[in-house]
Amino acid sequence: MKYGFSERVKYLKSSAVRDILKVINQGNIISFAGGLPEESLFPIEAVDQAFHKAVTTNTKSLQYGETEGVKELRDLLAERMKQKGLVRQAENILVTSGSQQAIDLFSRVMFNKGDVILTENPTYLAALQVFESYETKVVAVDSDDDGMIIQDLEAKIAKFKPKCIYVVPTYSNPTGKVWSLERRLKLLELANKYHVVIFEDDPYGELQFDKEQAPPSIASLDENNLVLYTSTFSKTVVPAMRIGWIVGPYQIIRIMAQAKQASDLHTNSISQHALVHLLKDFDIDQHIQTIRDTYYERMLVMKELLDSVSIEGLSYIAPKGGMFFWVSLPKEMNTTALLDEAVKEGVAFVPGAPFYVSDAEENTLRLNFTNSSPALIREGMEKLVKVLENAKVHN
Amino acid sequence: MKYGFSERVKYLKSSAVRDILKVINQGNIISFAGGLPEESLFPIEAVDQAFHKAVTTNTKSLQYGETEGVKELRDLLAERMKQKGLVRQAENILVTSGSQQAIDLFSRVMFNKGDVILTENPTYLAALQVFESYETKVVAVDSDDDGMIIQDLEAKIAKFKPKCIYVVPTYSNPTGKVWSLERRLKLLELANKYHVVIFEDDPYGELQFDKEQAPPSIASLDENNLVLYTSTFSKTVVPAMRIGWIVGPYQIIRIMAQAKQASDLHTNSISQHALVHLLKDFDIDQHIQTIRDTYYERMLVMKELLDSVSIEGLSYIAPKGGMFFWVSLPKEMNTTALLDEAVKEGVAFVPGAPFYVSDAEENTLRLNFTNSSPALIREGMEKLVKVLENAKVHN
Repeated sequence: MKYGFSERVKYLKSSAVRDILKVINQGNIISFAGGLPEESLFPIEAVDQAFHKAVTTNTKSLQYGETEGVKELRDLLAERMKQKGLVRQAENILVTSGSQQAIDLFSRVMFNKGDVILTENPTYLAALQVFESYETKVVAVDSDDDGMIIQDLEAKIAKFKPKCIYVVPTYSNPTGKVWSLERRLKLLELANKYHVVIFEDDPYGELQFDKEQAPPSIASLDENNLVLYTSTFSKTVVPAMRIGWIVGPYQIIRIMAQAKQASDLHTNSISQHALVHLLKDFDIDQHIQTIRDTYYERMLVMKELLDSVSIEGLSYIAPKGGMFFWVSLPKEMNTTALLDEAVKEGVAFVPGAPFYVSDAEENTLRLNFTNSSPALIREGMEKLVKVLENAKVHN
Repeated sequence: MKYGFSERVKYLKSSAVRDILKVINQGNIISFAGGLPEESLFPIEAVDQAFHKAVTTNTKSLQYGETEGVKELRDLLAERMKQKGLVRQAENILVTSGSQQAIDLFSRVMFNKGDVILTENPTYLAALQVFESYETKVVAVDSDDDGMIIQDLEAKIAKFKPKCIYVVPTYSNPTGKVWSLERRLKLLELANKYHVVIFEDDPYGELQFDKEQAPPSIASLDENNLVLYTSTFSKTVVPAMRIGWIVGPYQIIRIMAQAKQASDLHTNSISQHALVHLLKDFDIDQHIQTIRDTYYERMLVMKELLDSVSIEGLSYIAPKGGMFFWVSLPKEMNTTALLDEAVKEGVAFVPGAPFYVSDAEENTLRLNFTNSSPALIREGMEKLVKVLENAKVHN
């Protein structure tokens, strides 16, 4: 039988990165392609204890729960955000099945066909997928190392009258960039002037390498109820829990909760209660420090090997946190073509092109350094350097 | 600031039942209003062990997982369904965050604005909410105790050219009805003749009271790839796990998986792995038998009290399984008005009207018998009988 799908199916794409990963995971390949946290750092004992308590302490916590999320967890989240200067009440928080769901539910309640969203270029691929699935128009704003370029941002706000500006301002995926405080404030100023909502996606904010703090979150600087802020425990505890949250203006959070009720009633509450116990019984900040130290060391190993490449015109941003290197090769090199060579050599990366909204730079690539040991990073990078230098010679 | 929401927000409604429950849960009221399983039956030890194994056995299971669901779980689901005559491969299965998400993802990939869905009348409220949130048109088909009336079904298929027929054919919510085998076969015949997809929602199929088996699922009778079938572990293990699944034609399941990837990447995989261990180590069928026995006893207590009401024109369907009594009072009685009286007396139910697509019968109500002990059912029903008889006198 032939099935009649909805129009929006045309705009649903499978992630190019996920498709690459499927191929790569089949072979014996050193992969810098994914965005996975290091498994040996998972706090298994603490997670085990937390689930044990969640299951055995209170039968009620195994019953159907509130769509908004477990109240005790929302209180703890409010407390943790307050420590970082982001002061919001539990009623402004919606617990979600990972921050991916926060992006999806927000899109569901905000966007009509044809609505414009401004983003950085390149930006988080899976957010683009969601936005496009709602038949919106995503427009890229020019950026430099400090964030969006304010003149271009204002010009595009004036021209396109966007409904939302989507940003990943701290240790971004894919570029690893950090927005400066000045740009954060300017963004808020323009959003207020033109009445545009900002969606601040912050999965990596905790993964900071420098002693020097990153600038405060945009949400914490917001005095006009303009910002939705989402984060997750996928990078700091374990991804399999699928617990994220979104905080923002009550009018929006309330409607998102209605959409969530229709979507999946509520987020897995065994995991929510486990997280309550984990946050109470376990020193998560000490644990996050261990993650930072480990990732910092790995980043330095990757940096050392990148510095050894003898290709003029290769450049990268040294990450101050997060999970990724963003590398630009000379203009004439094409990383999608190079990936085949690299995989033959036993190493993988993600070509940069899919992360672009428009004007894709085919000479870019993303390297993840969090999911391989320093020895494997060294081995894999040596292979990659060989592939790159070889390709350069033949170009 | 004033926020501009999407058009579809107009069609998002909060559940009337959930709103009633919020009020009721605040007082000291015996509630027959919800649809909750009995907490004292939760297999806590087995669940605890299962989560312990899921967290400690394999670090990989705490990492990001496959959108389609944990392969081992899909294999076990295929095996369990096969025992009930529903033969499908693991690749035809998508694991979802409860069967609510199965309804939502299906709607997302199938329905355009204005598409018609045929349903029973009354039917599952939260499915109506999802369908309406996609701006579809839901049309009710006349039913009797054996299922949809085939003449009316065919007339409405011919007239409305529906994209889907949504049914809860086994121990339905809210009516507790079971479709006869003949009607199941006729439904399939018509669906095949007119090329319409059937969505079979079966959360209660396992909760059978009679020695006499319910007729086989519609999906298991389907020879033409017409049926999507969804079920859940919320009623047989614990709701807080939020694990459901949907099985159907590969073309549809594949697209739903893409929609799920955009929605929330994948279902909580700690819970999925826990369920794998539970299904292997725990005699879930023995456990389900205990649930059946307990609910059957409670149903009989409620039935006894219903039989004691001296109101001419009161009728109900004695459930052969599931969780609900559906009661009709004399035409002139209005259950929405009666609810206030009942709550004052210390007992609650859900008025029937919100479950109707059209032509709501204001004299109906739904009673849940699974979440109160026999003693509480007796106490609550005595209060309710008093309220009903009182109201009848004053009518």
